[in-house]
Amino acid sequence: MMNMTSPAVQAPRGGPVTRKDVARYAGVSTAVVSYVVNGGPKNVAPATEAKVQNAIRVLGYRPNAAARALKLGSTETIGLVIPDNGNPFFSLLAHAVEDAAAELGYALLLTNSDGNLAKERRNIRNLAARQVDGVLLSSVLMEPDLAELESADIPAVLLNHSADAPGFNSVGVDLTGSARSVVEHLISHGHTRIALAMGTNTGGFLDGREQGWLQALTEAGLPEGPIVRSPFTREGGYIAGRRLLASADKPTAIFASSDLQAVGILRALHEAGVSIPDDIAIASFDGSAEAEYSWPPLTTVVQPAEAMAEAAVSALIGAQRNRESEHLIFPAELQVRRSCGCKGN
Amino acid sequence: MMNMTSPAVQAPRGGPVTRKDVARYAGVSTAVVSYVVNGGPKNVAPATEAKVQNAIRVLGYRPNAAARALKLGSTETIGLVIPDNGNPFFSLLAHAVEDAAAELGYALLLTNSDGNLAKERRNIRNLAARQVDGVLLSSVLMEPDLAELESADIPAVLLNHSADAPGFNSVGVDLTGSARSVVEHLISHGHTRIALAMGTNTGGFLDGREQGWLQALTEAGLPEGPIVRSPFTREGGYIAGRRLLASADKPTAIFASSDLQAVGILRALHEAGVSIPDDIAIASFDGSAEAEYSWPPLTTVVQPAEAMAEAAVSALIGAQRNRESEHLIFPAELQVRRSCGCKGN
Repeated sequence: MMNMTSPAVQAPRGGPVTRKDVARYAGVSTAVVSYVVNGGPKNVAPATEAKVQNAIRVLGYRPNAAARALKLGSTETIGLVIPDNGNPFFSLLAHAVEDAAAELGYALLLTNSDGNLAKERRNIRNLAARQVDGVLLSSVLMEPDLAELESADIPAVLLNHSADAPGFNSVGVDLTGSARSVVEHLISHGHTRIALAMGTNTGGFLDGREQGWLQALTEAGLPEGPIVRSPFTREGGYIAGRRLLASADKPTAIFASSDLQAVGILRALHEAGVSIPDDIAIASFDGSAEAEYSWPPLTTVVQPAEAMAEAAVSALIGAQRNRESEHLIFPAELQVRRSCGCKGN
Repeated sequence: MMNMTSPAVQAPRGGPVTRKDVARYAGVSTAVVSYVVNGGPKNVAPATEAKVQNAIRVLGYRPNAAARALKLGSTETIGLVIPDNGNPFFSLLAHAVEDAAAELGYALLLTNSDGNLAKERRNIRNLAARQVDGVLLSSVLMEPDLAELESADIPAVLLNHSADAPGFNSVGVDLTGSARSVVEHLISHGHTRIALAMGTNTGGFLDGREQGWLQALTEAGLPEGPIVRSPFTREGGYIAGRRLLASADKPTAIFASSDLQAVGILRALHEAGVSIPDDIAIASFDGSAEAEYSWPPLTTVVQPAEAMAEAAVSALIGAQRNRESEHLIFPAELQVRRSCGCKGN
């Protein structure tokens, strides 16, 4: 047992506590202090390490992080670029990335692009200039700007990205299959006019969620329902909901491409006195906590944020880092609640 | 105008681009390159600076951030410690802090405490060891652990903190006055049995929101309504809502201490077939986007997250940094929507 309250040792006046002070207090060489602080390169006996750790604690020694980074050639930091931390799916993802990085001793620099491509590029450049050990990019574009990442010349993994990206590792969900499963579920409730509320900012590429919706309708021999395109936000959903209510081809069910859009659609339907799911059923995509607590609770497909974050961090700085151009696609699971017409939660 | 596509200059093989390479390409001394990269200490003529910037871009030069930090004695990074990035109020606050820090050229290390005091302490220690230039602490406790901040010996500002904290700057809202205004509003709708759903983790201190609720009731000559204590989460609110519905002293209105709690209460009321606001009215605290899109939309008091974030960042690393023990209290504004019984939004 160590005496935690022992000698009233003070930091030397007039300057910060140094490695030398720690060595003197612990009765070891400065090299041994370095080994303890840096976890090597030589081993230190447990009893000696305990003495050094005690001295660090008593004296309040803080190793110089900048000097350490210079020596290690690593800042032990990763950067995350997401479109919007205010979207509960991305705040969940950011939290999961923080946890997975912390497991490996890395801290997280968080940057929001605010759905703005120019800001996304600036964030990537800034993170590169800060010499983070790598960047996880969840782009505002369906097809991210790989040229920016390449010119930044920094290890990067595309997160929440479902297509192959030559030269980069990527982690995403099976957008098409997941969307198909949720639209098939709406069809199983007897719906034949199923609309799609599709997010924008997809850069002109056909989104997997749109493909999945189309596939499910085609396979069931149903006509294409109306499509409304609007931002992946609550307000975007609200506008989409009002437009769908006003359309000549009013649907009896809506598939929303994000939980946030669905939340906005719910508001538009409630305001119009539409009963959900009796008049119009709804299902969405993401699996955020907000979907569980909307009224009625939303049937949605749940993206496995934690597993995706862990895989992306591992591909960037962990055990999987040296595999190049590996594209991990996770399944997203259908979570049935009341908004589709099912009973119970 | 500079020629952006000019000479096909390659980085020298076998190593990174150095300051010397940039100097040679731009036709200036290495000292001039340093002045441009570091913004001083000597001024550089605009035309020369343009030449250097062009060389940096063409060669893909990245200054060594660790060496720069060692020289500046600053990592140009601040740390943020929040209870939970999944709470939309804190994700809004984190985003506002990121923006305010970026304005001053600082990046943001984000850490979540997950409502856990031990993790909060660990986050503070880790940020100190990384030599961030300062920490913004939004504690899980009403009275944060100042000893931890003091022993970390790092500049810190308490954020989302409404009481005085000797030796520290703090930024918060007027919890008591804001809560009083919203409870007075419920009283103006004719309610006489107004319950309080109060968040936990306040460390045994009387929360300003509870004081404000009490003051409004006392001044109106009303009896104390029931109090239910549960976590500041959607699930905490759901549990509180079910308990209030089952209580002998069933209220006709509820004041929830956070938007998230109110969202959970709404779910409990909807499930029980309670009409809102006709059977039970509800109002809450925070002003997150989720409150605007719940059903019915929530009357709430809006914390000025952006102004608070800017003030906190300024107190930590900006113009206001040398004022000690300044306690900034912002007013929070009542935002009336439908959940209290008002018409319109």
